[in-house]
Amino acid sequence: MPSEFELIRKYFERAPREIRPGDRRTRRVALGIGDDAALLRPSAGMELAVSTDLLLEGTHFRAGADARKLGHKALAVNLSDMAAMGAAPRWATLALALPAANEAWLAGFAGGFFALADRFGVELIGGDTTRATPQGAEPGAIVICITILGEVPRSLALFRAGAQPGDDIWVSGELGGAALALTQPGNAAMEKRLEEPEPRVELGERLRGLASAAIDVSDGFAQDLGHILERSGAGAVVEYASLPRPAEVKNIADENLQAGLVLCGGDDYELVFAAPQARRGELAALSAELKLPLSRVGAIQGADARLQVLDGQGKPMRVGHGFDHFAP
Amino acid sequence: MPSEFELIRKYFERAPREIRPGDRRTRRVALGIGDDAALLRPSAGMELAVSTDLLLEGTHFRAGADARKLGHKALAVNLSDMAAMGAAPRWATLALALPAANEAWLAGFAGGFFALADRFGVELIGGDTTRATPQGAEPGAIVICITILGEVPRSLALFRAGAQPGDDIWVSGELGGAALALTQPGNAAMEKRLEEPEPRVELGERLRGLASAAIDVSDGFAQDLGHILERSGAGAVVEYASLPRPAEVKNIADENLQAGLVLCGGDDYELVFAAPQARRGELAALSAELKLPLSRVGAIQGADARLQVLDGQGKPMRVGHGFDHFAP
Repeated sequence: MPSEFELIRKYFERAPREIRPGDRRTRRVALGIGDDAALLRPSAGMELAVSTDLLLEGTHFRAGADARKLGHKALAVNLSDMAAMGAAPRWATLALALPAANEAWLAGFAGGFFALADRFGVELIGGDTTRATPQGAEPGAIVICITILGEVPRSLALFRAGAQPGDDIWVSGELGGAALALTQPGNAAMEKRLEEPEPRVELGERLRGLASAAIDVSDGFAQDLGHILERSGAGAVVEYASLPRPAEVKNIADENLQAGLVLCGGDDYELVFAAPQARRGELAALSAELKLPLSRVGAIQGADARLQVLDGQGKPMRVGHGFDHFAP
Repeated sequence: MPSEFELIRKYFERAPREIRPGDRRTRRVALGIGDDAALLRPSAGMELAVSTDLLLEGTHFRAGADARKLGHKALAVNLSDMAAMGAAPRWATLALALPAANEAWLAGFAGGFFALADRFGVELIGGDTTRATPQGAEPGAIVICITILGEVPRSLALFRAGAQPGDDIWVSGELGGAALALTQPGNAAMEKRLEEPEPRVELGERLRGLASAAIDVSDGFAQDLGHILERSGAGAVVEYASLPRPAEVKNIADENLQAGLVLCGGDDYELVFAAPQARRGELAALSAELKLPLSRVGAIQGADARLQVLDGQGKPMRVGHGFDHFAP
């Protein structure tokens, strides 16, 4: 079996990632994989955004999940955190625990990871690989821990706090597709949303100075918008009918199921953000430029309002467990 | 059971870690736990050192390990990576997976983590907590993933590469104690070395501009010195008798066992470094100032020599499996 060092080199140490002391004038990465730590040179005038996600087999993805898709998704959820901060993703570390040194799995995972990393100019700067199976024990679960680092110009980062009463609430793309794939497998388009989500990195960067608050949809629209409201000390009214959803979700006859997917379904990795009404024109233009639908779904209110979702008749809805948590 | 959000707040979100937009002039951390990412403001003229370690129950620590000691050790191994780079540790992220929300465990772990973090001024800036037990499954293993970020003045970081023929080889503290505790439990002093290692952070910072190459001893002296040699394109001669070891190791009658512990025992988290002979006086003074023994154990040689460990009669030794890997 190849050693840990050999595996790291073969799949994750890509030339020319490493350079030697004395040869480090032009590169953002002074030293990558292969020393006790990576060395980075943050750009002047930038703040550094840092986020960590831990993914466990059996909890965050099913045993036997496709390795290439997993490599994509593990990085995508971290890129989505950068998007929600308005940060440009730059560097990532990757810690992996595997039940055994499975080269086919590693090749697939690295393929999915680097294909996405290269699209956004993210460099893998370090990591840790571990055998997840203690001697004589049952095979352990796959563990993936990624830390991502991004840069954002000073004072331009997007926060959960900052939404003001009167601001519009916007959602990118569509909601509920990933959760549909989780509950009703078999539709390839919806499964792609679940297994290979598209992080809204460009949108996040363009929302700097435009949005007053932002978050990405990982736990479900209601819960994640709830985080914005809590941090902003604000409430909100959302029109359920205006929430964007794919045809596969729209066609679900069971209204409660459909509402649960749209309001509480996680894993879509769209951005939910607030912006002043005066910026509607700019957001419409941005939507056209990025070829990414941006839907205006409601309005921020004062702190006494909390989160109200109104049905087609203007009546407050109560939907599912995740949503109840934020109901009055 | 408390939710993920409640647990994060209770044990890991320490005031005044979070500040709001507009109130961020004087702090190094613009925004900590509680948003999509942490925001840092690296100091001007500094490079950023980044390292990630993944610790698994059953592999890196035994089931039932004391939570407070684990909180110490999980951070200590990361601080040790900063020390080996000559970086001052500043920030950390922590991802945790637990079989269940065990508050006593969390309180212990956070206690050990923060006691060490506070000694070195490290701020916990973000993280992720996860239930390691899928619905209906056996309890999953505890997973701890820490990413540490430190700062080092430009061009002063310590690398594995850089050792020059003629340089002395130095070791801090003592070797083999942690491995002894692993193979023969029962001695409290040795168990403390294994379970609560002391990262050589101050030494690492003081070695800037003094050492030509450095690494920390996580996998064993021979293997870790081997990484310096490989990256530096160098060989080395080490005098076995000069390798520092605690009395508990020195008193082991079985010479092979003793040599295995000293040369191949991991987890000591001492620093091994190379330095020009001209710096011996400075290193002696530094050792006295830090009250930390620094032992001169050998010399760097040309690339054709590889690693030779000489016994008391000046004869090359062959010791254990980890060492064989680097033997000629």
